[in-house]
Amino acid sequence: MRKFERGELLKRNVVYSGRIVEIVVDDIRINGKETLREVVRHPGGVGILAELEPDRIPLVRQHRYPVDRDVLEIPAGKIEPGEDPRQTAVRELEEETGYKPLSIETAFNYYPTPGYCDELLHIYYANKVEEAETCFDDDEDLEIEMYSLAEALSLIREGELKDGKTIAALYWLALKRTDSL
Amino acid sequence: MRKFERGELLKRNVVYSGRIVEIVVDDIRINGKETLREVVRHPGGVGILAELEPDRIPLVRQHRYPVDRDVLEIPAGKIEPGEDPRQTAVRELEEETGYKPLSIETAFNYYPTPGYCDELLHIYYANKVEEAETCFDDDEDLEIEMYSLAEALSLIREGELKDGKTIAALYWLALKRTDSL
Repeated sequence: MRKFERGELLKRNVVYSGRIVEIVVDDIRINGKETLREVVRHPGGVGILAELEPDRIPLVRQHRYPVDRDVLEIPAGKIEPGEDPRQTAVRELEEETGYKPLSIETAFNYYPTPGYCDELLHIYYANKVEEAETCFDDDEDLEIEMYSLAEALSLIREGELKDGKTIAALYWLALKRTDSL
Repeated sequence: MRKFERGELLKRNVVYSGRIVEIVVDDIRINGKETLREVVRHPGGVGILAELEPDRIPLVRQHRYPVDRDVLEIPAGKIEPGEDPRQTAVRELEEETGYKPLSIETAFNYYPTPGYCDELLHIYYANKVEEAETCFDDDEDLEIEMYSLAEALSLIREGELKDGKTIAALYWLALKRTDSL
């Protein structure tokens, strides 16, 4: 297998530092030539596919400003500094649904857009949960809806469910159920 | 179903305009309060899962600078101005593998990261292809490798295949083969 070149970093320029992302433009030298690499930097995120009861999957509906529409997603969030991704997943499920996972399984993790962004997304699965004692934050502008796996898959087919992590997680669960993973 | 608020756009600030992405920060008014929304803008992309022969799937290996590793992906690229996403898919398959799809099927399309980016990714599937007459560009720093679906799924399980669109597309094909979509 061929060894690919990363190039040598000459200078890193932070061109924007925001609330979720930071944009850096690196001057690099690769194969004898000087060029640029632009990178959207993100702290990493998690998504958690849960079954609160058998085949009762909570999805969060919220307006997503960048795409200007309501998007249906598994509970998710970004990793806080120093937080283990599993903790993030437990916290997000609890905050968004009021349920606490008793155990969680790693489904898979992936780069959503490795061509321009360094985000790594961790997808977890939980099918044993209990009602949390803490109240969940209902100030967030979101709604929880419950779906069976078959219903959620049909929303993907109809183009009504368009979030990447949610599609991948639901396909994963469908394959797991048919022992095809 | 509740109607969510998008907010009123007061002013758009383009903070970075790069080769792949543009970053805008919008001043908005929502529920009586003024606040900001940061958006990574992207022209949209495609990925194409192809079977050059039955169960012979080409994956592209290339170094992805943002994540600093080699990433294995279905042929993919960004949509050029005025281009129909299907054209992009045909072009990318041809440029990267030297094969031209005789017909393509829409698998699904999705937002990889709707929390901060507007990219819409179109995933296509092609299982009828012919060798293209044009030579493909071998200047690009990438390699084509061939996998069966079972091999590719095992790379996901082992954490060796970590690209979001590729994972979702392979899961889609696995479900299609078991008639579980």
